[in-house]
Amino acid sequence: PVSWKGQSLVSVAQITPKGFELLVTISQQMRDIVRSEGGDDRLKHKVLATIFYEASTRTSCSFQAAMSRLGGTFIHVDGQGNSSAAKKKESLEDTIKCLECYVDAIVLRHPETGSVPKVVLSTTKPVLNAGDGIGEHPTQALLDSFTIWDELKDDPKIVVFLGDLKHGRTVHSLAKLLSQLRPQSKLILRFCSPQILSIPDSILEYCKNNGVQYEIFEDATKACQDAQILYVTRIQKERFETEEAYESVKGCYVVDNALMDKVPKNMIVLHPLPRVDEIATEVDADPRAAYFRQMENGMYVRMAILALVLGKSSP
Amino acid sequence: PVSWKGQSLVSVAQITPKGFELLVTISQQMRDIVRSEGGDDRLKHKVLATIFYEASTRTSCSFQAAMSRLGGTFIHVDGQGNSSAAKKKESLEDTIKCLECYVDAIVLRHPETGSVPKVVLSTTKPVLNAGDGIGEHPTQALLDSFTIWDELKDDPKIVVFLGDLKHGRTVHSLAKLLSQLRPQSKLILRFCSPQILSIPDSILEYCKNNGVQYEIFEDATKACQDAQILYVTRIQKERFETEEAYESVKGCYVVDNALMDKVPKNMIVLHPLPRVDEIATEVDADPRAAYFRQMENGMYVRMAILALVLGKSSP
Amino acid sequence: PVSWKGQSLVSVAQITPKGFELLVTISQQMRDIVRSEGGDDRLKHKVLATIFYEASTRTSCSFQAAMSRLGGTFIHVDGQGNSSAAKKKESLEDTIKCLECYVDAIVLRHPETGSVPKVVLSTTKPVLNAGDGIGEHPTQALLDSFTIWDELKDDPKIVVFLGDLKHGRTVHSLAKLLSQLRPQSKLILRFCSPQILSIPDSILEYCKNNGVQYEIFEDATKACQDAQILYVTRIQKERFETEEAYESVKGCYVVDNALMDKVPKNMIVLHPLPRVDEIATEVDADPRAAYFRQMENGMYVRMAILALVLGKSSP
Repeated sequence: PVSWKGQSLVSVAQITPKGFELLVTISQQMRDIVRSEGGDDRLKHKVLATIFYEASTRTSCSFQAAMSRLGGTFIHVDGQGNSSAAKKKESLEDTIKCLECYVDAIVLRHPETGSVPKVVLSTTKPVLNAGDGIGEHPTQALLDSFTIWDELKDDPKIVVFLGDLKHGRTVHSLAKLLSQLRPQSKLILRFCSPQILSIPDSILEYCKNNGVQYEIFEDATKACQDAQILYVTRIQKERFETEEAYESVKGCYVVDNALMDKVPKNMIVLHPLPRVDEIATEVDADPRAAYFRQMENGMYVRMAILALVLGKSSP
Repeated sequence: PVSWKGQSLVSVAQITPKGFELLVTISQQMRDIVRSEGGDDRLKHKVLATIFYEASTRTSCSFQAAMSRLGGTFIHVDGQGNSSAAKKKESLEDTIKCLECYVDAIVLRHPETGSVPKVVLSTTKPVLNAGDGIGEHPTQALLDSFTIWDELKDDPKIVVFLGDLKHGRTVHSLAKLLSQLRPQSKLILRFCSPQILSIPDSILEYCKNNGVQYEIFEDATKACQDAQILYVTRIQKERFETEEAYESVKGCYVVDNALMDKVPKNMIVLHPLPRVDEIATEVDADPRAAYFRQMENGMYVRMAILALVLGKSSP
Repeated sequence: PVSWKGQSLVSVAQITPKGFELLVTISQQMRDIVRSEGGDDRLKHKVLATIFYEASTRTSCSFQAAMSRLGGTFIHVDGQGNSSAAKKKESLEDTIKCLECYVDAIVLRHPETGSVPKVVLSTTKPVLNAGDGIGEHPTQALLDSFTIWDELKDDPKIVVFLGDLKHGRTVHSLAKLLSQLRPQSKLILRFCSPQILSIPDSILEYCKNNGVQYEIFEDATKACQDAQILYVTRIQKERFETEEAYESVKGCYVVDNALMDKVPKNMIVLHPLPRVDEIATEVDADPRAAYFRQMENGMYVRMAILALVLGKSSP
């Protein structure tokens, strides 16, 4: 959205270049505020509900810390397992319509693809999609994009995606967002994966429609040539139908010091985390390893989103 | 209580007409404050413990949001399953005596009937009963009553209870509270249910002793004639001893547009929620459907209770 | 530490007599503040993460209440069972490195002995050890020690430990801390247990190396002669290899009114809680029963630790 105020955020498709520029500015202000003062009081007396029907540490915690640092408060609903609403067979719509009576905005993660956009139809408070199955996770794509611009201080020219590009929700969202933020630009997106984990055609289509070039690779070193950004993702066992399929590709890419020696000296490495083995811990000390800065940015970007949506972009 | 300050709230039997009047006034003030400012700081530096040994979304969240909106904070203890105290076989009394060392007031839900009144004997901080088994749930009855007066702007004359009146803790508490708030009045309570789910004699006795009239119905349309309030409850499968018993009555009442066409044009529909099928979602758009307003009132009434009990009825 | 600011707290070995004195002073100030005002705002805009991979009610709640009463906020991560990080096989180091991006300090409990000191090596924010397996639980030892000095208003001469001295992490930490706080003093530590639950030699060694006397007892009444402090611990069934071993000692010591009649008139009784049967509830009314005061002190001591570590020992 250009004007974020009062809006729900369900998909990266809503993000305009202007809206993103505003978000970058406010996110950087948030970082300054946190580093100098810890936070401010602009969201005093505002209450956020963080409602998670699926496990999450990073997303829920960063939203909660974001709200706290702006002087607001949050209530958390763990919708997994034992929760009251689930046990009593209440519809998701009803649960959210009840909770919105108490709060000013809602962060919602749900395992069912499409569930969050559907819920938004019946609510009156802004709902921020924190992941709906293999659907969208727009705040992740926004913090990824913010980190790219923040690290480069310029438009990216070549961005490499590495790993499981078939199942990776974050890759899909980020590739779409980058294409639509800089349509008809010189941006090149490179997709590097084993064949059985290659990027879906729908994403390539999306790039093409936005006039953004893409290239397909299997070799990580080649893919990284002249690149400014390497975006690594985890190959998740649970996404494979057979043990064999997983075994055939697991560990196919490992970003370690040996690889880092062969790639551009200023190529930034990102990862949505958690990682398992796809980035060796020895890389953490490399100044190009930006994934923990990316993690920190997650809080600043979510502070900015909350401030914008709740109409408090100025303190 | 007339004077709420420092008092525990374990039963609707404690509520006097004067005490209720005060609660209504403060609850309406709370609504004004939330709508204009989001909240205030009257409970700054106060800490509430919300301790739930049974699943709850609405009750715990509304207390937590209520505390937050008054500038206070809360700590939450999930007493189900994995909790430390339960594992270590600590008595409920000891657990509560420990937690009260840290906080200014306690909200407690426990599956065992009578557990909350028992705990109150050994605590020094105010304890608010958020449900003790099939015992009491006084803050629910108070928010229901508040909603009745707030919607009608007058004393109710005819209130209809519909659904499972045998097991429904909220029905029992509300029927008792209404009788004792307007004893010897022209109030008529109508209890409409299948025979096997009829209202216990003890509740009818309570009405009679307070000089309040009651009537028994099986037909919903007839029960609603000239009524101002229809209070609907869910028929909960888990309360039945056999599948057959449940099957014989499930879906016996459905409040839908067809029924709404036959009842008084200004008859308000309430429900403690969650609902399953007993109110069709098509009714939600009817201005007489007040159950989401009732939900919202839950926060205002709990803000008022917390403010009164903690001695901060003025900001 | 003497200077607490910015420091992690992983072991009682870090505590100097000067550092402890400072903690006592600040803890007493915290009690005054809570009793008069409920709290203050010195930790405004600071965020604490409480991360528990093992069940805890008292420790997590008292840290959360402590943070709240100083105007700060907390986010809670339940690392048991269903948590996101555990499911995704992220290393503990990575999880903590992510969470520290959002917060100013971390409270961490983990079942693996040595895990917390290990994590501290890779973090940049202060980490407070809230228990690492059978390793350390330093804030418990600090609140126990604070209570001893606060109750006696003087150095203790004779302290008796009673119960399971073999497995009791709190006993080990407290015995070590007392020895090192008053080395070469007239302090006598008495260890009273069944033989199969006797205090490990390493602890006795620690006492000896600090020039502190110790004595071994099996009879509780004899152990308490001329004592000022009786520190009771629970005999935990889950620590025994066989049912028989547990049965042979369970209930071997019960502190009841009969025992209290035979011990010094001013001997203070402490217990880390929860208790099961080892202290009869009839003792609670005895003015020498200090375990609920000890519980309350837990919050003041943790407020002091948070204030010191976050550099806000003055308001």
